[in-house]
Amino acid sequence: MTALDTVRTKAELRDRVRRWRNEGERVALVPTMGALHRGHLALVEAGLKRADKVVASIFVNPIQFGPNEDFAKYPRQEAADAALLAKAGCSLLYAPTVAEMYPDGFATTVTVRGVSEGLCGAARPGHFDGVATVVSKLMAQCQPDLALFGEKDFQQLKVIERMVLDLDIPVEVVGVPIVREEDGLALSSRNRYLTPAERAVAPALYRQLRRVADGLTAGTAAAELCASAGAELVGAGFPSVDYCEVRDAATLAPATRFDGRPLRVIAAARLGGARLIDNVAVE
Amino acid sequence: MTALDTVRTKAELRDRVRRWRNEGERVALVPTMGALHRGHLALVEAGLKRADKVVASIFVNPIQFGPNEDFAKYPRQEAADAALLAKAGCSLLYAPTVAEMYPDGFATTVTVRGVSEGLCGAARPGHFDGVATVVSKLMAQCQPDLALFGEKDFQQLKVIERMVLDLDIPVEVVGVPIVREEDGLALSSRNRYLTPAERAVAPALYRQLRRVADGLTAGTAAAELCASAGAELVGAGFPSVDYCEVRDAATLAPATRFDGRPLRVIAAARLGGARLIDNVAVE
Repeated sequence: MTALDTVRTKAELRDRVRRWRNEGERVALVPTMGALHRGHLALVEAGLKRADKVVASIFVNPIQFGPNEDFAKYPRQEAADAALLAKAGCSLLYAPTVAEMYPDGFATTVTVRGVSEGLCGAARPGHFDGVATVVSKLMAQCQPDLALFGEKDFQQLKVIERMVLDLDIPVEVVGVPIVREEDGLALSSRNRYLTPAERAVAPALYRQLRRVADGLTAGTAAAELCASAGAELVGAGFPSVDYCEVRDAATLAPATRFDGRPLRVIAAARLGGARLIDNVAVE
Repeated sequence: MTALDTVRTKAELRDRVRRWRNEGERVALVPTMGALHRGHLALVEAGLKRADKVVASIFVNPIQFGPNEDFAKYPRQEAADAALLAKAGCSLLYAPTVAEMYPDGFATTVTVRGVSEGLCGAARPGHFDGVATVVSKLMAQCQPDLALFGEKDFQQLKVIERMVLDLDIPVEVVGVPIVREEDGLALSSRNRYLTPAERAVAPALYRQLRRVADGLTAGTAAAELCASAGAELVGAGFPSVDYCEVRDAATLAPATRFDGRPLRVIAAARLGGARLIDNVAVE
């Protein structure tokens, strides 16, 4: 198998994309932090359905990690990732250095209010500023026709949609459904932090989200369902639950009941060295 | 004379720019708040030297005004402005409404640290966030090859240069020298707020900036020169001086003396209903 074509500077990236554009080809961008799994490859596959070329980026973005988070230990495995991307039909890997992305004197932040507040925004101050800033940079560097993001990071997807709308960035944002293990656990690069015992506990998160979703559809109040889900998660072996909430799927405004408008049940919980997040739709 | 072609939506703007691009033409953007004077027209002229088409925007941007500033009374005279632009050779006027620029739910802010701090950033909290945000939007809406800004708003120019660099916005930023009245007063839309008596006092600002610049070249310390200039301005009839400072022309870092690296002497002072700003180079 031929190695995946890889560039490390925005100048090279732009040059490749420009050449494709001149040939009338549509370009999709899949931004990732590497440590790829089938969830990421689903983004590439969705990109190939909508565009002629798919660029994947791998960049572990320092400015979206808090001081006590896992930036240093976040898994880095570029060669293995490149092989997976090549097999999935990806056209180009963009893997810039931190110095290429944030040269000396870097001083700009993109902040999205509203959708970035609460949920993971409360537990991870500054996280969504870091996400919005790096995604706006990646979009400006690549200038793709569309960019794809996983729905597992549902709040992140909403932050990016809002930013792209507000800043008039000429890129279509596409959300791609969560890919799960057979037992329901949402795929995540951080699942590898789990011990076998913790891995056995982890699927309870999805089970409880489904229970809340089913309860909402049956007419039960969100507060009651979420309190019960939190207690069940602790009972199942999660040491603590960051949040379990029901939100409007479009605006992330808190919702008390299902009244026909699409909702999302969203939760985050710590388990050993991992912080797991997941969500399910109520439609 | 034919009226200047005018569009009010970003969709129309993009359509025009796309057509020019398809014909291989280079496009320049001149963002303004209207109330045009010869300083703005110098931006259009500089744009025509570097591009085939010049788009001028007129948008009095609410988010860059503080609650006690002159947003409501800022002069609006689109028909007169359009006539001036047409005469200067401008190709298109983009004059969006506030609702077109900031639709319901707008929630994103672009912040540039460092160069936005101190000087006007201290006196006008949030001002440069509003400037950076609207300029990033105008650039994304128009997607010009270059954009031109007057050096009178020197700190603003530095904020925009930094933002464009940091967010990888593919637009060349061009600063255009200040245009002055015969007596040295920098042209400004806000000069019309001055009474005849205030207008007679106003040129003292430029005279004092020149004195500081000449003193720096002669080896005098910045602190001494600026203190003296402030006192002279009050003596000349300025009720108060917001600041008079010497800064590195590239980074806006405070400078104590001229050591060969380019500096800017920058000042702001209130006079009647106006807040005048001006600056001169030391090279």
